[in-house]
Amino acid sequence: MYAKRREALRKKLHEQNLAAMLVSYPPNRFYLSGFELHDVQQNESAGHLLVMADGHDVICTDPRYLETARRIWNTDGIFIYGGSGSATQDLNGFLRSQVRGTLGFEAGAVSLKFYNAIAEGLDLRQADGLVETMREIKDAQEIACLEESMALNHKLMEWIPSMLLPGRTEADIAWDIEKFFRENGASENAFRPIVAVGPNAALPHAEPGQAVITDNCPVLIDCGARHMTYNSDQTRTFWVGDAPTDEFRRAMDLVRGAQSAAIALIRPGVKCRDVYRAAYDHFDKAGQAEYFTHGLGHGVGLETHEAPSFRRKGETVLQPGMVITVEPGLYYPQWGGVRWENVVLVTEDGVRVL
Amino acid sequence: MYAKRREALRKKLHEQNLAAMLVSYPPNRFYLSGFELHDVQQNESAGHLLVMADGHDVICTDPRYLETARRIWNTDGIFIYGGSGSATQDLNGFLRSQVRGTLGFEAGAVSLKFYNAIAEGLDLRQADGLVETMREIKDAQEIACLEESMALNHKLMEWIPSMLLPGRTEADIAWDIEKFFRENGASENAFRPIVAVGPNAALPHAEPGQAVITDNCPVLIDCGARHMTYNSDQTRTFWVGDAPTDEFRRAMDLVRGAQSAAIALIRPGVKCRDVYRAAYDHFDKAGQAEYFTHGLGHGVGLETHEAPSFRRKGETVLQPGMVITVEPGLYYPQWGGVRWENVVLVTEDGVRVL
Repeated sequence: MYAKRREALRKKLHEQNLAAMLVSYPPNRFYLSGFELHDVQQNESAGHLLVMADGHDVICTDPRYLETARRIWNTDGIFIYGGSGSATQDLNGFLRSQVRGTLGFEAGAVSLKFYNAIAEGLDLRQADGLVETMREIKDAQEIACLEESMALNHKLMEWIPSMLLPGRTEADIAWDIEKFFRENGASENAFRPIVAVGPNAALPHAEPGQAVITDNCPVLIDCGARHMTYNSDQTRTFWVGDAPTDEFRRAMDLVRGAQSAAIALIRPGVKCRDVYRAAYDHFDKAGQAEYFTHGLGHGVGLETHEAPSFRRKGETVLQPGMVITVEPGLYYPQWGGVRWENVVLVTEDGVRVL
Repeated sequence: MYAKRREALRKKLHEQNLAAMLVSYPPNRFYLSGFELHDVQQNESAGHLLVMADGHDVICTDPRYLETARRIWNTDGIFIYGGSGSATQDLNGFLRSQVRGTLGFEAGAVSLKFYNAIAEGLDLRQADGLVETMREIKDAQEIACLEESMALNHKLMEWIPSMLLPGRTEADIAWDIEKFFRENGASENAFRPIVAVGPNAALPHAEPGQAVITDNCPVLIDCGARHMTYNSDQTRTFWVGDAPTDEFRRAMDLVRGAQSAAIALIRPGVKCRDVYRAAYDHFDKAGQAEYFTHGLGHGVGLETHEAPSFRRKGETVLQPGMVITVEPGLYYPQWGGVRWENVVLVTEDGVRVL
């Protein structure tokens, strides 16, 4: 599987007259090799994958990962840097010895400092998006994993209302969610769960805190799990109690309506911006568009947020195999907000909600 | 607290003739403002903090974070980008309008792509390490948090041997650890726990998998929690069963001895490389130095890995308030390995193990 993906990338390297590509962005590196989906922390790389047009691909990493790399890769395709005391100096020397021609790299994934440290003597060219574009189209195996991952998320959303009891905090519920995912097969959170009570629901990226569920209040839950290596992502907004306010009901109707209008439009050949527009127009007709403060959705896969996006200027044309969220929301700082999110698969002739 | 830290940074800006500094690295941003300790994902910033030499500091972020920023910051010190459709274009325009003089930025924290997109018309200068250097010295409140965080880790390490039962997997134990931390007050893992059974203990950054604990085998556990906002980090290597092999006993003796030799040297005025050397020499005398494949330790605080480091070429001179791990290890692919890690605080006249 990984070898097949590298062959597809190699074809692109030939088309673009690149002698090689240095893949540094962790999900891209993993997608092409199975080596380390995560970096250690934000400023500490687990390594780089060098994909050569001539077919000799190399994992470049530090000594901590030598054994890990050996388990999935031929030893003669592993380069360990850091021996000189400078990882970037060693990497620069290795790249100069291996690459005869232009070396593509990911300008959005490497720091300016890293770039300056490895650039000397190399013919470098920005080649961002080559791998991301491949990742936009999920193959049958990836779709099967995403279906499993989303099935777990649906199961969570069926169960979670029973936990939304007055007196419990956002943090309590967030931990319920994490435990549920992990004890049902997930390897980690796709992202930290958002559990937002009352006015906190007006913060699209709220951090779960000590706010307490009361009798009759809105609770917005947005969560996802990594399961079968792929991420799920889903939002539901619940009303706790039996007397939802008129403004909550109205926002819920508008949000669900906007989601339906957007999904109805999704099929191969449609532009992402038109799908965004369908949701926006639905809000606009009701005079509420100013309370819809974010994009309509994003690709989901090895990352929670990946290409393509349903946004105002999204020029991507939908193709079969794309997996994208549709998540309209309306936010009112006075009382909270409503968001409703599903993940959809673009099929040969339309759309399927996962 | 945050304002006091920004004043300390402002003093450095004046010293270096910087009109302002754009702080992009999430832990630095949080350290100076309390705004968002984490980015959304690796290629998606939650925002930047602009610290001005003249004292008007601004949180620059996207609309999703407006309400979050308002809760901790004056509205006239919040700049929301993205309105034009390009976040970097908006940010460039804002910086050009605000900064009269040289703008420091973090070359190790921004991508080449981000740099190229915001550089036009600005007088930029790399100012990496200004905030990291401040963060090296923990104040009394930070030390109190780190003590609490490490106390939780000690509690975990006292309890965990009771869970190391033949038949249980690495992944089972890793989940025990995460639950223990979270149910005892931690907000998240400091990093994904390492639980490595048998030969897996030879991988310094092993991923917990389906390897099963057997009667008589080594289990290496390296884990940490974020508690009171600060990270803990601790490694213990256990022998499950009553018949540890001679090679395990010998490695354990050497590792504990190397740790003691290193800690005995720690006090203000000593260079980091000399502390590394003490451990290395201990292994070298026994002819085992080649199996010690990583540095001896790293600073711990808002990040699991931060400055300074006990490494071969570490030139940093120890000062009171530094908090650093001491974690020698020996790794043997045939049967596994041993690592033993404590966190120490450099005091006015020596060292205290936390």
